[in-house]
Amino acid sequence: MNLHNRQIAIWILAASTLGTVLSITPTQAQGWKMPPDNERCPSKWGAADQRGAGNMMTANNVLRATRLIRTGEVFELGDILSPDPKETFINRGRTYAITTKLSIAIPNKRVENEEIITTELGQIGTQIDAFAHQMWGDSFYNCFKQKDIATRTGFKKLGVENIGMLMSRGVMIDVAALKGVDRLEGGYVITPDDLQQALEKERMKIEPGDIVVINTGWGQLLGKDNPKYEKTSPGIGEAAGQWLVTQQPMMVAADNCCVEVRPSVPGTSLPVHAMMLIQNGIYLLENLRLEKLATSHAYEFAFIVQPLKLKGATGSNVAPVAIR
Amino acid sequence: MNLHNRQIAIWILAASTLGTVLSITPTQAQGWKMPPDNERCPSKWGAADQRGAGNMMTANNVLRATRLIRTGEVFELGDILSPDPKETFINRGRTYAITTKLSIAIPNKRVENEEIITTELGQIGTQIDAFAHQMWGDSFYNCFKQKDIATRTGFKKLGVENIGMLMSRGVMIDVAALKGVDRLEGGYVITPDDLQQALEKERMKIEPGDIVVINTGWGQLLGKDNPKYEKTSPGIGEAAGQWLVTQQPMMVAADNCCVEVRPSVPGTSLPVHAMMLIQNGIYLLENLRLEKLATSHAYEFAFIVQPLKLKGATGSNVAPVAIR
Amino acid sequence: MNLHNRQIAIWILAASTLGTVLSITPTQAQGWKMPPDNERCPSKWGAADQRGAGNMMTANNVLRATRLIRTGEVFELGDILSPDPKETFINRGRTYAITTKLSIAIPNKRVENEEIITTELGQIGTQIDAFAHQMWGDSFYNCFKQKDIATRTGFKKLGVENIGMLMSRGVMIDVAALKGVDRLEGGYVITPDDLQQALEKERMKIEPGDIVVINTGWGQLLGKDNPKYEKTSPGIGEAAGQWLVTQQPMMVAADNCCVEVRPSVPGTSLPVHAMMLIQNGIYLLENLRLEKLATSHAYEFAFIVQPLKLKGATGSNVAPVAIR
Amino acid sequence: MNLHNRQIAIWILAASTLGTVLSITPTQAQGWKMPPDNERCPSKWGAADQRGAGNMMTANNVLRATRLIRTGEVFELGDILSPDPKETFINRGRTYAITTKLSIAIPNKRVENEEIITTELGQIGTQIDAFAHQMWGDSFYNCFKQKDIATRTGFKKLGVENIGMLMSRGVMIDVAALKGVDRLEGGYVITPDDLQQALEKERMKIEPGDIVVINTGWGQLLGKDNPKYEKTSPGIGEAAGQWLVTQQPMMVAADNCCVEVRPSVPGTSLPVHAMMLIQNGIYLLENLRLEKLATSHAYEFAFIVQPLKLKGATGSNVAPVAIR
Repeated sequence: MNLHNRQIAIWILAASTLGTVLSITPTQAQGWKMPPDNERCPSKWGAADQRGAGNMMTANNVLRATRLIRTGEVFELGDILSPDPKETFINRGRTYAITTKLSIAIPNKRVENEEIITTELGQIGTQIDAFAHQMWGDSFYNCFKQKDIATRTGFKKLGVENIGMLMSRGVMIDVAALKGVDRLEGGYVITPDDLQQALEKERMKIEPGDIVVINTGWGQLLGKDNPKYEKTSPGIGEAAGQWLVTQQPMMVAADNCCVEVRPSVPGTSLPVHAMMLIQNGIYLLENLRLEKLATSHAYEFAFIVQPLKLKGATGSNVAPVAIR
Repeated sequence: MNLHNRQIAIWILAASTLGTVLSITPTQAQGWKMPPDNERCPSKWGAADQRGAGNMMTANNVLRATRLIRTGEVFELGDILSPDPKETFINRGRTYAITTKLSIAIPNKRVENEEIITTELGQIGTQIDAFAHQMWGDSFYNCFKQKDIATRTGFKKLGVENIGMLMSRGVMIDVAALKGVDRLEGGYVITPDDLQQALEKERMKIEPGDIVVINTGWGQLLGKDNPKYEKTSPGIGEAAGQWLVTQQPMMVAADNCCVEVRPSVPGTSLPVHAMMLIQNGIYLLENLRLEKLATSHAYEFAFIVQPLKLKGATGSNVAPVAIR
Repeated sequence: MNLHNRQIAIWILAASTLGTVLSITPTQAQGWKMPPDNERCPSKWGAADQRGAGNMMTANNVLRATRLIRTGEVFELGDILSPDPKETFINRGRTYAITTKLSIAIPNKRVENEEIITTELGQIGTQIDAFAHQMWGDSFYNCFKQKDIATRTGFKKLGVENIGMLMSRGVMIDVAALKGVDRLEGGYVITPDDLQQALEKERMKIEPGDIVVINTGWGQLLGKDNPKYEKTSPGIGEAAGQWLVTQQPMMVAADNCCVEVRPSVPGTSLPVHAMMLIQNGIYLLENLRLEKLATSHAYEFAFIVQPLKLKGATGSNVAPVAIR
Repeated sequence: MNLHNRQIAIWILAASTLGTVLSITPTQAQGWKMPPDNERCPSKWGAADQRGAGNMMTANNVLRATRLIRTGEVFELGDILSPDPKETFINRGRTYAITTKLSIAIPNKRVENEEIITTELGQIGTQIDAFAHQMWGDSFYNCFKQKDIATRTGFKKLGVENIGMLMSRGVMIDVAALKGVDRLEGGYVITPDDLQQALEKERMKIEPGDIVVINTGWGQLLGKDNPKYEKTSPGIGEAAGQWLVTQQPMMVAADNCCVEVRPSVPGTSLPVHAMMLIQNGIYLLENLRLEKLATSHAYEFAFIVQPLKLKGATGSNVAPVAIR
């Protein structure tokens, strides 16, 4: 354990002891710092690695997930992408334009229709973040550098096409239920304690390689009040992020934009994104629909997500499922 | 059995008896006709149905597929979407434009990249066809009419968002292996006999609800000789299509553009598309990469595909897998 | 003069006599009807004609306009297209997405940037309507039919590439000034009387081939209150449209969305569009910035507009000027 | 005259004396170098200037051009943008996708069509380059820096919206005619001597503020052999570029991709782009159709071009004209 990690471990211990009252304090704001390149690279999966926690997608892991499929019940977790901005949340500054390529009918003949779509396909709706999405300075996961991997038509490394299907044990941590609410407040910082208490209540434990699904209830606003959904959200703070890293998940997912709390602690900008995607090679999955999973108390399941193979892209819209 | 179906049954019998020599004959060209609306509607799943064979996606069906996952071995069947037309096959008249939304690096700060993509997202690369893709005259699956369901930004009915994940038993029918070749010839018409003999050789049977995966070897051209890949292809003919319909699959998939043979029989235009998507509500999945599945002699597996939930779209690019 | 035209002439006479009080009355609502195909086709410019009033763009007409350039003062009449929806009015259901294709700087080397833009380029911002934009039933200007000229990638006839530069005498009719206001009210119906009185006040007459520019003041809302700008607008009513047709302009332009009043008379939908573009082959030019022209009392000028040569498109964003 | 300029002047003198034999020599390859920032900035139009030679677009300049309009004859110089890549030249790596937003006809009702277009609108077809198009290292015209002006949705400075209509005296220099050919060879380097001799033959002189139009004949390949058109082209070399700079044109235009010769001198990359757009603030206009201008021996005319007001864009597709 190097000095940096020891400091984090001590800090996490302190944070756990002090509990949720810590959630927005100067101490926390300084709780996490991006280590310099030479402390975080090469990745534990090797200097050339582009898959990070995706390396845990082994055959055994698939079997571990398969054993959780007992009734065949499927939960669709993806949100619909609609051209109507009232129906579908589109982040400010992004677009989703769909135009039908309509054929004119010809009697007794087969004709076909298509549609052309323009969108930030990797970063829209229910979507997985690939490592090309985030840089610290000019440095990505595993210290790939922007000038070496960026092109005007995608990235030469770390693109979403490297991920492949992720199928793993999924564990839902229902923090809203722990707090006895349908929906946490916007800006609420989920703490390590919140996660641990919710898991205890659910009699669940996170295992390495799991896909952690955090229910905040915020996703109930999707398609109902998109402006409110976008403005802020409850989500994990830096400390909860740090604790999750120690649990070695393959991916962290949530029913909000960004998994982590918004607004970020003053002086920081989506630090959990940096911690997960750049420092630790752990994927994020955003804007899930978890209502049915939550009301069904489905805490453990096979989680399956198939990112599109968009060469060099920073992410992919997806339609993941939980099956139990 | 109405008159129309009896004629087909007799014709199929004849075709089976006569075998492969029949493959391009005037008789075959007249083998299939789209029945009038009142003979094909309402669909057997009800007058309001929009899911067709997707209705077979029950919990039991999921369990049936799950039981085939024994080693956890995953076969990725989706092709990569690259901006380089040499790497990725893009149908003539379609486009795939990806532009990196690059951030300029700021020292010691997190910044993010995205990309904007313009494409016929439902009809590009490895893709599933939804029922909105095809009309006969102005009439779709279950006799929905163009003027009632078409808009300039998608279809009100039969869009790909109605499909959801399809997870079912998959059966690969390796016609190339049956014929002792790596790759069937462009224009080769796969017959009912070919399918049945290949299944026999593999000791497989199609069960209702299966996803039928036909290996022609043509997909080996993907990214190697895209112009040749596009120009023609081997694939099922009308008779093989008719026989498959009697087997009640959920979907028919192949490693070519269009599942069915190209060029179509003179005087017809992709008749199997019409037969499957309009008349019978059976999905098609195109442009698969089946090389590894074929060399692994993986004939039976769990097949999983997650179409994007693009409201009103005619299909979706996908990244399906087979797991055994 | 056929019966239809005689009726119009009589009706216009009545309208002129009765004056502005007529502006919203049942009589007016019934004032204009689209004549059947055989009464409006072939166009007076011939059965194959695709240019309508653009045929008046002769060398003599260019010289007529050139003679009005006396000081070299240029008025830029086009609005800026910005990605910020507060700055630029984008009609509901349309999009304007611009993404910089940024190059990463290389010391002491030349590199270049571009941008990719997705938009309804023919129908966005300051824009000219081509005849392919409008149909009555399935019938366009000069009775071209949709099934004959529509494709999924543009129109075979009547596309904006047929127009070419329009350079003609421009006449501004300042109705806002006539009424002594900066800006007419939303929904205000400009009458034939309004136009004639304003022209009289300005000591101007419309000549055949002119580009008529109507100042309503509504354009002052552009970039200041786009939602209000979009919701309604002052503009010419059916009667004023009819009177303008008798003046034989090449184009009618205004500082509002649609040239004509919105909302349309109940039971009708943008009738002046139909009257001008379908029936009479007269171009429309929308969303102009006329502030400086109005405050400069520039009533007569050379008007120049260069539509892009987008094959088969329904219009073009443009950056027209007035020069005097 | 600073040292740098004196060197150029001497060098140009030498080049003129030595004549065309100089055209591809090591000396020439080293003939032009981008001066360091402090030698080329601030621009002669001031440290905040964004318009460069566009500042010569004065009322007097408009009148100077207007006086050349004698017959009203219009030459359309823009190429059509077609979705068919055989008809329209689209640079490799760029796209032009047009999709009709077709309405379904409703009897006796007005309906409308639009189209959505995705393209590098500033850098496609006949197009004008704005200063945001080119950087040397991270430095633009007038030493604006990339990190200060680039955004993911356009540039804060130097965008094409700053140009406005350019109307000026146009002078065609017909180098193909000088050489007695329809079309110069691909790769032919036009020299200062070529330009001067052609002007002499035409009895023309360049005046400050002119728009210089160079006819190479290469544009005859547009829509006939686009691959050949793209691969190389005749065009001005560094020396001719340098000489043109001394003539103080507002813009340099040509019937090829890039105005300048391709391939560039080994070791350089489009140096005339850097010289004109970055160092000297002179606009470039590419891919013109000059056939009719050339066969009409129209050497002097009013040149008018209206770039779209695309905020922050690097250029604009345009439809310019010459009028005499």
